Amino acid sequence: MELFEKTLDSKKIFDGRVLHIVLDEVELPDGKRSKREVVNHPGGVCVAALDEDNNLSFVKQFRYPYKEVVLELPAGKLEKGSTPLENGKRELLEETGLEGYSYISLGQVYPSPGYTSEIIHLYACRVKSQGEQRLDEGEFLNVEKISLNKAVEMVLNNMIPDSKTQIAVLKTAALLKSGKI
Amino acid sequence: MELFEKTLDSKKIFDGRVLHIVLDEVELPDGKRSKREVVNHPGGVCVAALDEDNNLSFVKQFRYPYKEVVLELPAGKLEKGSTPLENGKRELLEETGLEGYSYISLGQVYPSPGYTSEIIHLYACRVKSQGEQRLDEGEFLNVEKISLNKAVEMVLNNMIPDSKTQIAVLKTAALLKSGKI
Repeated sequence: MELFEKTLDSKKIFDGRVLHIVLDEVELPDGKRSKREVVNHPGGVCVAALDEDNNLSFVKQFRYPYKEVVLELPAGKLEKGSTPLENGKRELLEETGLEGYSYISLGQVYPSPGYTSEIIHLYACRVKSQGEQRLDEGEFLNVEKISLNKAVEMVLNNMIPDSKTQIAVLKTAALLKSGKI
Repeated sequence: MELFEKTLDSKKIFDGRVLHIVLDEVELPDGKRSKREVVNHPGGVCVAALDEDNNLSFVKQFRYPYKEVVLELPAGKLEKGSTPLENGKRELLEETGLEGYSYISLGQVYPSPGYTSEIIHLYACRVKSQGEQRLDEGEFLNVEKISLNKAVEMVLNNMIPDSKTQIAVLKTAALLKSGKI
């Protein structure tokens, strides 16, 4: 079956600090017309930093859309002018004070492909040194160390809802098992 | 560190067919003010349906935000008046023609907790019978069977970007290994 959708028109709905919402009109594969509500997002990065005892550093943040504190691996939005990996190193340092080495890609995540263009780049690394947290203005989070084994158990027992964190934890465990990190 | 953010004001930006965008003003833990751009979403469901040869049924769809065809497990938006599990059974039947049994929860996914309220409910099941696809008007997708082992390999080799699919594949493999499905 032919699947391609052609853009006929694009209407800007909202240009925010992070989100850029458009309402597009498309031509479907059968020639009919439909609307597409799209969130254009700059993309993100997430880092699983494994220390010598195989603990991962997590962050706990209030996530406003859910009105709850969510446990996640260190992550952030991509900033223009630097690569996903450079952004990952910066976010890890800012949020946890950790400097990593032996970075390895864990691929990309499309968080919800029906409506958002966000791509989250995942990395794992080893921890080189521990410095001070350097949070951005208006950023509030607590760091928590959890062993990789415990984190895998938490993911499999449905105790960690965040998508990038579930994926990075399970992939890091697979890499460690195969001796790749 | 105190993490809670208090809503001071909420402004409706866009009320779409799927997305409901608001721009809220919040009070941060240090008393300062900030803005939150939020996508309110009805939630979703995703089903990993395993046949007797341990193949999973995937769907390939054109995903407009990425302008590409994306490989995913059968999934859809939650409809009001029915439970996530009922929605999952309906979506599986509509998109693949499959009827499942022995449904088991694989937990929930927060796809991108910084800006969307979407919760995706994940299930695994066994396949009972194969009927006809019953696609919604304007829905175009191709079904593809892939063995669970091959799918796990594809996830670990970063060939499946969709978040819910990566998570459901890896969790289904863990359940099968522990004899729970």
